Amino acid sequence: MLHDDLAVMVNGVPGKMATAAAEEVVHRGLILADEALTGPDMRDKIEINGVQIRLSPPEEHFACLQRCREKYPRLIVVDYTHPSAANPNVRNYASAGLSFVIGTTGGDVSAMKDAIAGAPGVYAVIAPNMGKQIVAFQAMMDMMATEFPGAFAGYKMVVKESHQATKADTSGTAKSVVASFNKLGLNFQVDEIEKVRDEERSVNEMHVPQEHVKSGHAFHTYHVTSPDGSVNFEFQHNVCGRLVYAAGTVDAVQFLDAQRQKGEEKQVFSMIDILRSGEMS
Amino acid sequence: MLHDDLAVMVNGVPGKMATAAAEEVVHRGLILADEALTGPDMRDKIEINGVQIRLSPPEEHFACLQRCREKYPRLIVVDYTHPSAANPNVRNYASAGLSFVIGTTGGDVSAMKDAIAGAPGVYAVIAPNMGKQIVAFQAMMDMMATEFPGAFAGYKMVVKESHQATKADTSGTAKSVVASFNKLGLNFQVDEIEKVRDEERSVNEMHVPQEHVKSGHAFHTYHVTSPDGSVNFEFQHNVCGRLVYAAGTVDAVQFLDAQRQKGEEKQVFSMIDILRSGEMS
Repeated sequence: MLHDDLAVMVNGVPGKMATAAAEEVVHRGLILADEALTGPDMRDKIEINGVQIRLSPPEEHFACLQRCREKYPRLIVVDYTHPSAANPNVRNYASAGLSFVIGTTGGDVSAMKDAIAGAPGVYAVIAPNMGKQIVAFQAMMDMMATEFPGAFAGYKMVVKESHQATKADTSGTAKSVVASFNKLGLNFQVDEIEKVRDEERSVNEMHVPQEHVKSGHAFHTYHVTSPDGSVNFEFQHNVCGRLVYAAGTVDAVQFLDAQRQKGEEKQVFSMIDILRSGEMS
Repeated sequence: MLHDDLAVMVNGVPGKMATAAAEEVVHRGLILADEALTGPDMRDKIEINGVQIRLSPPEEHFACLQRCREKYPRLIVVDYTHPSAANPNVRNYASAGLSFVIGTTGGDVSAMKDAIAGAPGVYAVIAPNMGKQIVAFQAMMDMMATEFPGAFAGYKMVVKESHQATKADTSGTAKSVVASFNKLGLNFQVDEIEKVRDEERSVNEMHVPQEHVKSGHAFHTYHVTSPDGSVNFEFQHNVCGRLVYAAGTVDAVQFLDAQRQKGEEKQVFSMIDILRSGEMS
């Protein structure tokens, strides 16, 4: 399917994740909309990859969305704004008849679904993690655990995750993978996950490149060992920067556009749906 | 289910894999049968973990099987013999009404299935790899590839496998995992798998313990990298010695015994069936 008139409005710029998504939109050759929503008391324009973007303050949001809908007949919205803005934004997108990808976490997902259900022809991807390959890995571990419960009974585990020092809580991805290992028969608690936030350990032990140690990384190592030590498995997934999430976001945009084209009945999708759609490509 | 009268005849002793399986039978508290089949011109007895085992030459095989069937009313046979012996043995087990686990590879599996189909009440596990956790990993990769085709499109891969120097061919497990990665969108050929057979590299690069570098090991590393290098995944499965295969073999024995007890209709099983049965335990 040709995407040459597919336009993407990216709300949340100049935030880092929104900016990365906007850059990926341009990189893929899609049209980056020249308007975006912003919060109160923010700047009124920004340039991304040569595209001048006019930013609308909250009182003008709905008018801005309607204007963009006219300007770009084939438009999808991407939302990487603030948790407090996510639900009001979703209501506005639905009211304006716009389909959207919401990467902003912390909103009330159930209320979002209600807003979409009341807006026929509006499609949405709601995903706590847009990193397609990471989501595939999590789903794979979950499938193994569901299919083969207890297959690793008696094994011991060590889990380490390294993130930039500003991330205080334990990685949600690591917690989800640990839940799968629990179903596989491993006796391991979430509080045994080792949080590495010390830069020297991140670099020397987890092999995080120096240039990403402060700016943002997500390195995970799961190591399991048989009771006698003769069998060892290790799984690692290591992400630097934001490109993997930006790429997954734009995959989600293209997926939604395809659902809209064919008038799919289902309206709300997850990254798993996007991963499964690979069979059509 | 109590297994206190479950007896296991292990054919192929004093071969290394058969011996490991026999030791695991004793370790689990099952009865190790005091007779076993052997090839032509072999010794006539052997002791394993204190059990004296009388070995029958080919011309006495069928009589030996019938005798064991009388002696051990709840008997399962394990076969780790020679590829050339596997099919004649299977015919004999089926004729004698004995259920069996065949770990010997290289036989004609289709002919084995025919022999079993003609013998009601005979159950068998036929598996090219008895290492339950390794089989689970392979199946997981295959599930991911089937569910999420193309999820890793554009990624690059490096695959290394280290085995003892006497193994000339490329690891079959590595080939099967590579086939899954191909479905996931990676452009990678089986002949790009790096076979490490040099002891120094096995120890220094793959971290094979010195004591297992000659005697038998199977170390596998799969590393995939996104086009821009910002995302890296690594999967390792590293096995020393034979315990994991012996343990899987005795799991298969106990599984077959359970199928026989409940008069299951299906007669031939794989390690996947055994892994799935975990949900019952």
